[in-house]
Amino acid sequence: MAKTVTLSLDAMGGDGGPEVVIPGAEIGLERYPDIRYEIFGDEARVAPILDKCPRVKEASRLHHCEVAVQMDDKPSQALRQGRWKSSMWRALEAGKDGTAGAVVSAGNTGALMAMAKFCLRTMPGVERPAIAAIWPTIRGESIVLDVGATIGAEAEQLTGYAILGGAMARAVFGIERPTVGLLNVGVEEVKGLEEIKAAGRMLRAADLESIDYFGFIEGNDLGRGTVDVAVTEGFSGNIALKTAEGTARQISEYLRAAMSRTLQAQLGYLLAKPAFDRLKEKMDPRKVNGGVFLGLNGLVIKSHGGTDAEGFAAAVELAYDMVRNDLMSRIASDLEAYQASGAAERADEGKEAAK
Amino acid sequence: MAKTVTLSLDAMGGDGGPEVVIPGAEIGLERYPDIRYEIFGDEARVAPILDKCPRVKEASRLHHCEVAVQMDDKPSQALRQGRWKSSMWRALEAGKDGTAGAVVSAGNTGALMAMAKFCLRTMPGVERPAIAAIWPTIRGESIVLDVGATIGAEAEQLTGYAILGGAMARAVFGIERPTVGLLNVGVEEVKGLEEIKAAGRMLRAADLESIDYFGFIEGNDLGRGTVDVAVTEGFSGNIALKTAEGTARQISEYLRAAMSRTLQAQLGYLLAKPAFDRLKEKMDPRKVNGGVFLGLNGLVIKSHGGTDAEGFAAAVELAYDMVRNDLMSRIASDLEAYQASGAAERADEGKEAAK
Repeated sequence: MAKTVTLSLDAMGGDGGPEVVIPGAEIGLERYPDIRYEIFGDEARVAPILDKCPRVKEASRLHHCEVAVQMDDKPSQALRQGRWKSSMWRALEAGKDGTAGAVVSAGNTGALMAMAKFCLRTMPGVERPAIAAIWPTIRGESIVLDVGATIGAEAEQLTGYAILGGAMARAVFGIERPTVGLLNVGVEEVKGLEEIKAAGRMLRAADLESIDYFGFIEGNDLGRGTVDVAVTEGFSGNIALKTAEGTARQISEYLRAAMSRTLQAQLGYLLAKPAFDRLKEKMDPRKVNGGVFLGLNGLVIKSHGGTDAEGFAAAVELAYDMVRNDLMSRIASDLEAYQASGAAERADEGKEAAK
Repeated sequence: MAKTVTLSLDAMGGDGGPEVVIPGAEIGLERYPDIRYEIFGDEARVAPILDKCPRVKEASRLHHCEVAVQMDDKPSQALRQGRWKSSMWRALEAGKDGTAGAVVSAGNTGALMAMAKFCLRTMPGVERPAIAAIWPTIRGESIVLDVGATIGAEAEQLTGYAILGGAMARAVFGIERPTVGLLNVGVEEVKGLEEIKAAGRMLRAADLESIDYFGFIEGNDLGRGTVDVAVTEGFSGNIALKTAEGTARQISEYLRAAMSRTLQAQLGYLLAKPAFDRLKEKMDPRKVNGGVFLGLNGLVIKSHGGTDAEGFAAAVELAYDMVRNDLMSRIASDLEAYQASGAAERADEGKEAAK
């Protein structure tokens, strides 16, 4: 029999706390009965909900934590008040000591990243962790990173993101050698920030088995699904992510208004409703719920704070997939192969030579 | 009788060249009969088209130019081969010497910006020009800048963009005191790039009559229309713009696929077609066609290279509006008021004091 997959859950994170997390864990368990949970939270609040979700109760251990990080806590505050003892911290610790293969929290992103960096530390060969998002595209799904862990990135960090994202694409999408593009701007005159150009040189020089370096892409390539993995620094990545979310909401709004304007349009809408429902499902943010923190000594999945049980379950399933497909060891061996390629040094030499 | 508005047109720009520019000018003239054109291009190609558009012929002067900047020319190439003599350059010159109130070109952005900077130079008090885009929102339209003139921006440049964008919002939307937001990322830990924070302090300190400084906004605020003017540096602005375009195209694609799947959906689509047409019109990129170069000693409107006559007409109408509403003198007086406020100096002092 296959080994079970253990996930640690911060039951207190998110706007709904355990009322969302535990039912979400139940849905995840229905789909993947071989999940086991380590649940961290306030026993008085969590236990009664576990009683209503007997499957989760059966498949989990509950660890009482007195402290819960609040959704509006600043990262520094969260660290001060929640280190060692909060449900968020202890869920991360379970990811660190190997009790759990991945950590899932709907808590606030800033606090979670600060704690995760402190608790898990970055992997050898990784300068900075990144937040990766799964991005729906015309062709299916791709991965975009970094969407907000850090502002700005040097070439070395961008190539690191490329390798992290590539490993994730193989683990989550099952693509043997995913294509990777560097997000850039297309205005001729300003094309090519120096660090993006350098990262491109390095990735080409490395000629890795794990990823297929595509070249530069632009913002409109994200929705088009031009590459499996789109790499950018965190500021523009975050703006791209939020802009796409905003545009999708805006068009839904237009559509709703247009469809309710006349009786005929309303009738048409009713007839086309199954089609609209498909569209809605495609655009459902819950389906792609969960930013993944990559580059730490442990996998952390951040679920949206405002999500419902179905959304939290999507984050649980993503965590399951990544553990099942051994993302952590893929990342480790890909990083090793990149270092062994000596591409970074050669790219530097190329730069020196070009001077 | 009101004065006419003179626009100079680069007839050779864009994929369609004069076959698009002249019919576009005709449509513009139908809507605003008080436009006069100075047309620059290859007489052998332009004159026959003018014969088919007698209204434009009547309202214009054609200036023969031997050289046309190509769509794939690099900016340096365009400057080398096209300075003084290309249709693009000479159209810009007409904007510089006051013959025309604004210049419209569908030529390549990099070349046009390079030539415009060289020919027109930046206004006193402006460090760098910006490209402003009109952004459709749930609430109507807003202005986003810079969408790609320059990568990176210091605080002083961001405040400059705020003033330029504010003046444009008053001229184009007729809003007395437009709200202005600074685009930022919402991840708590990384919130607030230093230069964006400083720009915020300066705008608050200046307390201008011309704009109402709102504070920080995020990517999803663009589609929501939270502010009339969204200010950002060119790299993330360009990525936001292209990402939004890509997302809109992606959703149209989803919708088309969903609506053709079953007979019932097809029937529903037919009934709801007028509603869909409204939606399409809302999402029509031709309607918001035209990036505006702000901060130069002359107004330049860049129409999409791949546009049709209707799209070029939209750029012409935008140019007309800006000249009619005297955008250039608004910008000049707003910049003066900002300088007089001494906000930049005070913000610097505040920063010194905070050290």
